[in-house]
Order: sequence, then C-alpha cells, then structure tokens
Amino acid sequence: MVRRDEMRDGERAVATPPATDAGLVFIGRIHTPWQDRMECPRQGRADGPLCQIVIDDVWKDALKDIELYDRLEILYWLHRSRRDLVWQSPKSDGTTRGTFSLRSPVRPNPIGTSVVFVERVEGTTLFVRGLDCLDETPVIDIKPARESFVPLAPPTPGDAMTNA
Amino acid sequence: MVRRDEMRDGERAVATPPATDAGLVFIGRIHTPWQDRMECPRQGRADGPLCQIVIDDVWKDALKDIELYDRLEILYWLHRSRRDLVWQSPKSDGTTRGTFSLRSPVRPNPIGTSVVFVERVEGTTLFVRGLDCLDETPVIDIKPARESFVPLAPPTPGDAMTNA
Repeated sequence: MVRRDEMRDGERAVATPPATDAGLVFIGRIHTPWQDRMECPRQGRADGPLCQIVIDDVWKDALKDIELYDRLEILYWLHRSRRDLVWQSPKSDGTTRGTFSLRSPVRPNPIGTSVVFVERVEGTTLFVRGLDCLDETPVIDIKPARESFVPLAPPTPGDAMTNA
Repeated sequence: MVRRDEMRDGERAVATPPATDAGLVFIGRIHTPWQDRMECPRQGRADGPLCQIVIDDVWKDALKDIELYDRLEILYWLHRSRRDLVWQSPKSDGTTRGTFSLRSPVRPNPIGTSVVFVERVEGTTLFVRGLDCLDETPVIDIKPARESFVPLAPPTPGDAMTNA
C-alpha cells in the first residue's frame, strides 16, 4: 500500500535497478499542514491551505522575477515513497492499475508535480495554495506554469515542425 | 548560454552544492527528430512531429492501463544542461531573468515536463506528439495528465481542507 509501505492484494513489485543514473540537489523544503501520509490530500486544491516553499539561500538569485507568474509548477521529491511497485491497488480491492497510469507517490522516481497559486513572496519564501504533500517535503524545481509561459528566446527550426 | 554552455552578458552562475540528495533511475529513452540543441523547439506542440518514448523492459508492467489516458505528463532528464545558472539571458541582450521564472533546460535539477498527446502504444513504445527535447533524452516518469486524472482511492482528511 502506498501510505504504509505494505503491499495490497494484487500489487506487484519488481527488483529495481540502482538509482544512480543522475543525482538531485534539494533546493528547499515545503511546509504544509500534513505530518502523516494518511492525512495528505489526494490532490491539491486552489482553495486549499496556505503552504510555504522555502528556498535555500544558494538559489536565492534564481527567484528573481518569480512574481511575474501567479501560477507556478512545483516539482518535489516524495521522500517517503517506495519505488518498486509496478501494479498498485488504489482501492485496496484486488483490482490494480499500472503505476504509470496513476499519479500515486509510489513510482520508480518519486517526483510529484503540482501547479500552485502564488499568494505572495517574502524573501526566499513563497506562500502558495494547491499543494498535496507532507510537511518537510524537499523541493527540486520551480517553473512558471506551462499555460502561463511564453518563451522569451527566438524560435528555433523545431518550433515550426508540424505533422512529421 | 543555454544551448552551447557558454555564459552570456549579465548571466550569473553559483557554486552548486553536490547533487547527491537523491538518485534517479532512467526508465527509458525518448526519440525525437532533434539531434542538436540548436534545433529543439522552445515548446512542444500538439501537432508537432510524432516521437517515441521507449520504456525499459523492467518497467513494462507499470504501463498497464496507460491506454486509458490520451494525455500524459512526461518527465525527462535534460542530460546536456549545465545546472549552475541563476540568472539567464534568453534574448542574449544583457537583460536577465531568474532561472525559476523561466522554463529553460538550464536549472539546478534539469528536469523537463511536457504534456503529450498519445497516438498509440505498441508494447513498451509510446507514440506521442508534444515533446521538445533532444533525441536520446532519458525518461524519468510518466503520469496521466493532471487535467485528465481523478484519484481512484477514497478521499483523505486533507482533501476537505480549504482556506486554512
């Protein structure tokens, strides 16, 4: 099971290759009201609790201009999740889904993505709504939400390729 | 600069901490028409070229039920990108933006996210449109697109929390 690490009827695990193909640096921490995986929402909501994303000082300059966007895509590391389940039973009823057809935190690379609504920014702290993760979850990236962003750089040959 | 690894006027780099907080396993490779970073589109398009996502056999079972979704979120590792720029100059004109206010491939953890449109699935190969990355880019995750997915598991206390 996802939240207590045991396996449910019908679930399937695999022997996973070593997770050494690339390395991540945690760029900060997320603060939410949820201390236990059993309490975390299944999905964030725009009118959910105000949460904080606190970025480490070394990356402070990378926050320049962040206030241009009120919707940000956040990537975070689901540090408490097992990584070896390929079939999961979300309803605990013996029926299963393949991991890549779920947004479960249990996956080969346990990375969560959410689009958050920014309320304000104070120094290296972002106050946002829309998260669904545990308190103290490590952050790995912040980007403008896809829908809000238009590239600044000039187009490339690839931008014009259609229907190939 | 993003695509040739040099720095442009006004750009700023930092001494980065070691990227050893967590490890990734590459779950497959992406095949696109783009062999050079100068050709890659700035953004994927729904009517762009048909690309292939080939998943490693060890994760084959995790693809079960993937055909339930015609829009998938793909996470991939931008393996050619430097990771130390905090200010970038997308127009090469001396004006800069903070990295977290850009969707540039250059970032502390160079992870790209795209929503793709699935044309068909054959074994462990997904044929999709909407990608923007180099040929041979490593894949790190596949999830149903946020907009298409409704959780199967029962709600938790957190799901009901609003406006805290």
